[in-house]
Amino acid sequence: MAGADEDPFRGFARRVPDGDSLERLVCGDCGFVHYENPKLVVGSVVTWGDRFLLCRRAINPRRDYWTLPAGYMELNETTAEGAMREAWEEAQARIVIDGLLAVYEIPRISQVQLIYRARLDAPVFAAGPESLEVALFGWDEIPWDRLAFPSVRWALHHHREAAGEVVPIPRRNPEGDAGDHR
Amino acid sequence: MAGADEDPFRGFARRVPDGDSLERLVCGDCGFVHYENPKLVVGSVVTWGDRFLLCRRAINPRRDYWTLPAGYMELNETTAEGAMREAWEEAQARIVIDGLLAVYEIPRISQVQLIYRARLDAPVFAAGPESLEVALFGWDEIPWDRLAFPSVRWALHHHREAAGEVVPIPRRNPEGDAGDHR
Repeated sequence: MAGADEDPFRGFARRVPDGDSLERLVCGDCGFVHYENPKLVVGSVVTWGDRFLLCRRAINPRRDYWTLPAGYMELNETTAEGAMREAWEEAQARIVIDGLLAVYEIPRISQVQLIYRARLDAPVFAAGPESLEVALFGWDEIPWDRLAFPSVRWALHHHREAAGEVVPIPRRNPEGDAGDHR
Repeated sequence: MAGADEDPFRGFARRVPDGDSLERLVCGDCGFVHYENPKLVVGSVVTWGDRFLLCRRAINPRRDYWTLPAGYMELNETTAEGAMREAWEEAQARIVIDGLLAVYEIPRISQVQLIYRARLDAPVFAAGPESLEVALFGWDEIPWDRLAFPSVRWALHHHREAAGEVVPIPRRNPEGDAGDHR
């Protein structure tokens, strides 16, 4: 079993598998092809009145810096469900989703972020296992020089800019249709 | 080396790796943890005047049915670059992106689709390797009963509905900022 500090790809080499046109990571032991895909991050700007919920990170990267509740999407959930799950895991908060605020892209690390507008259901929250602290900040109290990632700053500014806008653009699945048919 | 018809996960079992909280696919030979992530599909509704570009699929699933130029996002590209790449690969078409039309989700297969509005740069296109045929259809000529996936129908209808709308919602990265800094 691989230890946590070992390179999980130590037995892999890059080559073009049969029938493919791009180089992929292929295991030299068993021939397993590891298709690398961009990763989706789902999260939300969560407010209570005119204050913003932020989490101080307990883990690297950017331990000790403040972030939105957000993280990698898991299988078989919707992006909104993922954003709600992350708010629960990181801030022990139940949120109500109001609409999609932003789509950010960081191609260097092959990451796409879907960020929702959301509200706390009640002013109840606590640090989850990945947070040192969770708090509500008025706009002028936000620790701007202690934010974990550029997209946290973008999302807070975009949220302020978008106040009052109707949010069903872009379009989403038709009501109740999970696309689970042909 | 694994043959194309062999199950690539034949040596894997589901268990919770050290330090994780969910079951993952772990290789019984070498301990490699295969994290499964939702996949991003990028594509576009492409028009030339009031006609829509569709591709008849040369591959399964849904061979012989009509679809939008769309496919899995690759590493280190933006979603718009991915949509342009797919238009080139599937329809040998150069497109101009006008904005994000829709975000669709199919949680059963852990898929999120980002669909753009786009225009042909010139009425020049041809079947790429994954297409049997590429053609422009007026709205009433679209082969509605021969569309490959529900989201193709959704996107065409949403495109029609969105005609004339301003498209910079949701917000995107600030101009020229690829998030590649802290």
